[in-house]
Amino acid sequence: MNDDAPGRHMRAEIAAQPEVFAAVTARQAEIAQVGAVLADRAPRFVLLAARGSSDHAALYAKYLIEVLLELPAGLVSASTTTLYGAKPDLSDVLYLAVSQSGGSPDLIEATRHARWQGALTVAVTNNPGSPLNEAAELSVNIGAGTELAVAATKTYSATLLTLYLLIDSVRGGHGESVKDLAELAATALSAASDPVAEAVARYRYVERMVTTGRGYSSATAAEGALKLAETTYLSARAYSGADLLHGPVAAIDADTGVVAITSAGKGGEAMRDVVNTVRQRGADVLAVGSAAADMPASSRIVLPETAEEVAPILEVLPLQSLALGLSLARGGDPDNPRGLSKVTKTL
Amino acid sequence: MNDDAPGRHMRAEIAAQPEVFAAVTARQAEIAQVGAVLADRAPRFVLLAARGSSDHAALYAKYLIEVLLELPAGLVSASTTTLYGAKPDLSDVLYLAVSQSGGSPDLIEATRHARWQGALTVAVTNNPGSPLNEAAELSVNIGAGTELAVAATKTYSATLLTLYLLIDSVRGGHGESVKDLAELAATALSAASDPVAEAVARYRYVERMVTTGRGYSSATAAEGALKLAETTYLSARAYSGADLLHGPVAAIDADTGVVAITSAGKGGEAMRDVVNTVRQRGADVLAVGSAAADMPASSRIVLPETAEEVAPILEVLPLQSLALGLSLARGGDPDNPRGLSKVTKTL
Repeated sequence: MNDDAPGRHMRAEIAAQPEVFAAVTARQAEIAQVGAVLADRAPRFVLLAARGSSDHAALYAKYLIEVLLELPAGLVSASTTTLYGAKPDLSDVLYLAVSQSGGSPDLIEATRHARWQGALTVAVTNNPGSPLNEAAELSVNIGAGTELAVAATKTYSATLLTLYLLIDSVRGGHGESVKDLAELAATALSAASDPVAEAVARYRYVERMVTTGRGYSSATAAEGALKLAETTYLSARAYSGADLLHGPVAAIDADTGVVAITSAGKGGEAMRDVVNTVRQRGADVLAVGSAAADMPASSRIVLPETAEEVAPILEVLPLQSLALGLSLARGGDPDNPRGLSKVTKTL
Repeated sequence: MNDDAPGRHMRAEIAAQPEVFAAVTARQAEIAQVGAVLADRAPRFVLLAARGSSDHAALYAKYLIEVLLELPAGLVSASTTTLYGAKPDLSDVLYLAVSQSGGSPDLIEATRHARWQGALTVAVTNNPGSPLNEAAELSVNIGAGTELAVAATKTYSATLLTLYLLIDSVRGGHGESVKDLAELAATALSAASDPVAEAVARYRYVERMVTTGRGYSSATAAEGALKLAETTYLSARAYSGADLLHGPVAAIDADTGVVAITSAGKGGEAMRDVVNTVRQRGADVLAVGSAAADMPASSRIVLPETAEEVAPILEVLPLQSLALGLSLARGGDPDNPRGLSKVTKTL
């Protein structure tokens, strides 16, 4: 591999994920210390604040919190604080701020305000010395190592895993469902290699793609669409499988490449109708996940089976590889996308 | 107008909105009766459940609740209940279920469960006898009249207005900011007529559009993109102005038509940088809103000024007209989009 080859950072960081997962799971006890404080403070509600890829990690965490902790949760609109100066009573509220860089000014300000308003604030970042860590009462380190590519890959999946370990520890778990995740990730990357190359060839000229999933996998669909849009410039958008059957299905036809996330479990099973409906409209459907073999799709990337709630950590891997491959096939360099920098200063 | 003309229902329902707004505001006292119960029960946290266009109305309500009532709020993922069987403690929680038809099975089931779990449940529907009204403890009638077009127009804007009146009444308001809204809507439709026709000509052949707004107007951006996607089949997606400057801006170039929602107030002002950045990338930018005249855009649809928190009720009108016009110009019939029916039975 040439040292100047387009996409070399993104490729290396995708490949590093098994190793990163091993490092994150090795810190389970450290993450569980924060989880113990959360369990002790027993919040009634959870708010999640994030932007970009981290927003999709927050969506994943929202499902974990609602299902595993049975707490109501919401994604924060930072602008209600930063633009409109709202001062809600946040006692009994756990406020999780998720940011790889920990440097987004609006998140820092919103987190500081949440703490003033009585929330238990926790920063989840890949940069332990960041201003977001200073703003929050508690911090959890993602520990994914430096990310050189502009498109987040290993920091995204490591954020999911960190959030899983944190939330699992609040209910007294010790990460049992992710013990083998590093090995499974290596298997997934290797098994997906040929089907991803086929998908790259198939979608080489596609102009629009739709990604879709349900339940936990809604987050994978959202992150997959963002990854495709920011590296290949094709028009990609995500829909929850449920929302897709409302209005948006009208815009899906033979020109649309649909990626359906279908892992073993209730969310994947609920996707069967969606895959059928979309296929009937003439769209090409690529099923990705541990239940993909069983779906009426046009093509498949089958992943190793895990507990449903941790499947999104593996599901995103072939979507990252697909984005990388499509970007290169279309003459781009995903390490240098047009007009992007690593930290966006939203004010 | 021919009785069989394509888009006749959608056209008539767009035009009916001033009259619908007058009817809704006339029921302020009736809506405020429910608001008084909400104020009395003093919830600590608000959850909003909806799908499709109603989900965008719920997003608007989330901003109102966070800013005007200073209560933390979240959008519900119905699937955590309907697929995964989560049973959160919802005492102190206000659960607002928003659905024009009141007939979506997953919303009905999720609302029933929320009530069992202790939430104060309120159904906001355009169909007072619906199963969703039966499932909830309290009901608010949108009262927009029967909608014949498949694409929601008057029911969407009337839902926003109803939610505004409800939330405003919780803080003791009497709808002062929307007293003239029927007249302003008539002015807006009339003033937008020529600029919408120009925008239809300009975007006749566009393949991808992006809509963007901040704060309250995020909801308008989301609904505008859905309306364009479901009636014209072009690829349209919405971004918060803040998120757009993260990854997605990379996919915006000279081939992208960007609609920027820019009303007077803090959200509109925060869009100035977004409009500048997008213009520098060579994209065509249509600014829509009461502050549009002041934006560095390529073209503009200027709307009458209102209080910022009610601007989304007017902002959507020219976007509906644009979707109608583009659909007809591209040979479609927005009253008969491919593959859509009025109520989707998500299970």
